[in-house]
Amino acid sequence: MKEAAAAVPQTVDPSHALRLARRLIECRSVTPEDGGAQAVLAGELERLGFTVTLLPFGTTPNLFARIGTGAPHLCFAGHTDVVPPGDAAWTVDPFAAEERDGVLFGRGACDMKGAIACFVAAAADRLAFGPLHGSLSLLITGDEEGPATDGTVRVLDWMSDRGQIPDFCLVGEPTNPSAIGDCIKIGRRGSLNARIEVRGVQGHVAYPHRADNPVHRLLRILGELTASPLDEGSDSFEPSSLQVTSVDVGNPASNVIPSRAVALLNIRFNDRHSGASLSEMLQRVCDAHAPGAALDIRISGESFLCEPGREIGALRSAVRAVTGREPSLDTGGGTSDARFIARFCPVAEFGLVGASMHKADENVPLSDLAALTRIYRALIGQLMPEPGGETTP
Amino acid sequence: MKEAAAAVPQTVDPSHALRLARRLIECRSVTPEDGGAQAVLAGELERLGFTVTLLPFGTTPNLFARIGTGAPHLCFAGHTDVVPPGDAAWTVDPFAAEERDGVLFGRGACDMKGAIACFVAAAADRLAFGPLHGSLSLLITGDEEGPATDGTVRVLDWMSDRGQIPDFCLVGEPTNPSAIGDCIKIGRRGSLNARIEVRGVQGHVAYPHRADNPVHRLLRILGELTASPLDEGSDSFEPSSLQVTSVDVGNPASNVIPSRAVALLNIRFNDRHSGASLSEMLQRVCDAHAPGAALDIRISGESFLCEPGREIGALRSAVRAVTGREPSLDTGGGTSDARFIARFCPVAEFGLVGASMHKADENVPLSDLAALTRIYRALIGQLMPEPGGETTP
Repeated sequence: MKEAAAAVPQTVDPSHALRLARRLIECRSVTPEDGGAQAVLAGELERLGFTVTLLPFGTTPNLFARIGTGAPHLCFAGHTDVVPPGDAAWTVDPFAAEERDGVLFGRGACDMKGAIACFVAAAADRLAFGPLHGSLSLLITGDEEGPATDGTVRVLDWMSDRGQIPDFCLVGEPTNPSAIGDCIKIGRRGSLNARIEVRGVQGHVAYPHRADNPVHRLLRILGELTASPLDEGSDSFEPSSLQVTSVDVGNPASNVIPSRAVALLNIRFNDRHSGASLSEMLQRVCDAHAPGAALDIRISGESFLCEPGREIGALRSAVRAVTGREPSLDTGGGTSDARFIARFCPVAEFGLVGASMHKADENVPLSDLAALTRIYRALIGQLMPEPGGETTP
Repeated sequence: MKEAAAAVPQTVDPSHALRLARRLIECRSVTPEDGGAQAVLAGELERLGFTVTLLPFGTTPNLFARIGTGAPHLCFAGHTDVVPPGDAAWTVDPFAAEERDGVLFGRGACDMKGAIACFVAAAADRLAFGPLHGSLSLLITGDEEGPATDGTVRVLDWMSDRGQIPDFCLVGEPTNPSAIGDCIKIGRRGSLNARIEVRGVQGHVAYPHRADNPVHRLLRILGELTASPLDEGSDSFEPSSLQVTSVDVGNPASNVIPSRAVALLNIRFNDRHSGASLSEMLQRVCDAHAPGAALDIRISGESFLCEPGREIGALRSAVRAVTGREPSLDTGGGTSDARFIARFCPVAEFGLVGASMHKADENVPLSDLAALTRIYRALIGQLMPEPGGETTP
């Protein structure tokens, strides 16, 4: 597909995203707390003309905001909640939004209050040029870093019920490993957790024929599961990975064969598998070595892939124009709320640099905030050009 | 080797062993408590003319008693301590030594206060016939069911220092699976405990290439160790057995690759291995899959075998004469203090029926007490015939 060259936005005010990012970071919105973050965001969006709907589900604050009614409908999805500061030593107050030598510090700086601020600043810049031929929206949850049950999933159901599903959704997670422009995520692997409990027959180690060692049965199950890779990857995905995360018996008696053994494992799987196919495989391996073993499976998400089309083409072009870099189209890493959105519409993820996320002294250079604002602004400009034509190069 | 036919002792008083067994059971000698048991035994032995030496080491009561000074020197080894009654429901008081329908109930009835009483009663009967041409001794500890560090091991050192090592030692453990006369133990497998701790690099399950999963390394170690039997047995021993008794990681986070994993295992090994050869094997397997893993090994005992000679021949003959059964010469099962004695002199084990040992309602039929007393008496009679000749058939 031929991509139009995006123009570099010239009018963007780089201080807008910075100001909003600082106000959001100052809200102590450690999941499940909100700390006033969504009110700050709602006020800013209303000022710009968005219709804001607060959608608290359970104890989770969420909001949906939209401006315009027509197509194309571009939605920005993100979260105002942050992970705790943690035990590691910060050199700044995690919630002071301190700026030092051109870098903004604070929990959420890159994951992902900074990106929310960039999108709002980009939207503000576009709206200054006049009405949209299309519409912009924001789907913001306060429970992305938590159980995520009353967040994006429920907002999507609400949107679906009201005909508010967008044509394309951009998730603002920090997708870039080291520099703005590294990587657009166009899919994610699925994730499955399993718990295997094998019961045997307790006995004295000197008389193993009178016992049935559940540890040995579990070792055979886990040995088979980890003997060879699940696959070698696929066209769009890196190889699937199975990791045994815990094995627990808790038997302190060196002369006793225990009666039970438990293993926990996680599988990150690509499009060559599904939750169902992996569940069948796990059941077959358990049956082979420990008939009757208790196998509990929880599928956190199936793999998904957004085939590159017009919107991803526009995003690549915007990244290229602003950064001069060619972003890779990637499906690696962990999961995000994009897995829920993919059930409703095409979705991609692009945000800040994630190197400091979840760590002490989480930060974002001011130059990255400016660059991401320009990228988002260029994307909006391509998907819904302003009446007076594109911004000039 | 041709074995002389043993004569069945006719003079044994069957009530002597019963009376002493009851007095010993009434002492609450749950390891490390003595409950007065050794004083009861010491009094009885002094009354018969034995020289009794109390040998408390640390908090462990022990005694050594001997009558006569010459060869052959036959030693009976045993323990007055018992395992706790446990949670299981007894139908009698475990320390009341209740007799019901020809069966004596109580903790220690078969393991092994009953056998001690039988040996004392057999010695008393022999001594009634006049001076020994040889000597009899008892090596009794109060810490066989516990750590066994201040018990038989230290008494043996004391005996060795004083030239008191016997020509043959008979351990009174309950060797018979179901009936008196089933089985004489002439050796035991060795026992080795190992702890393997593998350290890796913690990380997120979605990025396994940035982590080093210690569980997978440990699984490869344990998989290799349990893939095939250590051996198929030897001329005198059943196959060696390796049992993984615990694996512990304790990682509750399903999205985290943990930093360490620990396994505990026990090996019961025959004479085709030694503690040293198995230690080398374990180190080699750990090195292959997890260089730097912490391997801690504790060798509880090497395997040993007492090649049947005059004394074991006499014991078989005694069993045959009293019970009409041909005892097997066996090396199976767990360990006993015989592993310590084997370093000093030939040793075999023969006692009561072990079916109820360590269980609720531990018991011994009075007929078994009488039979074992006669067997011990016949053995003494063969090894050191009384001046007037053997007891008549």
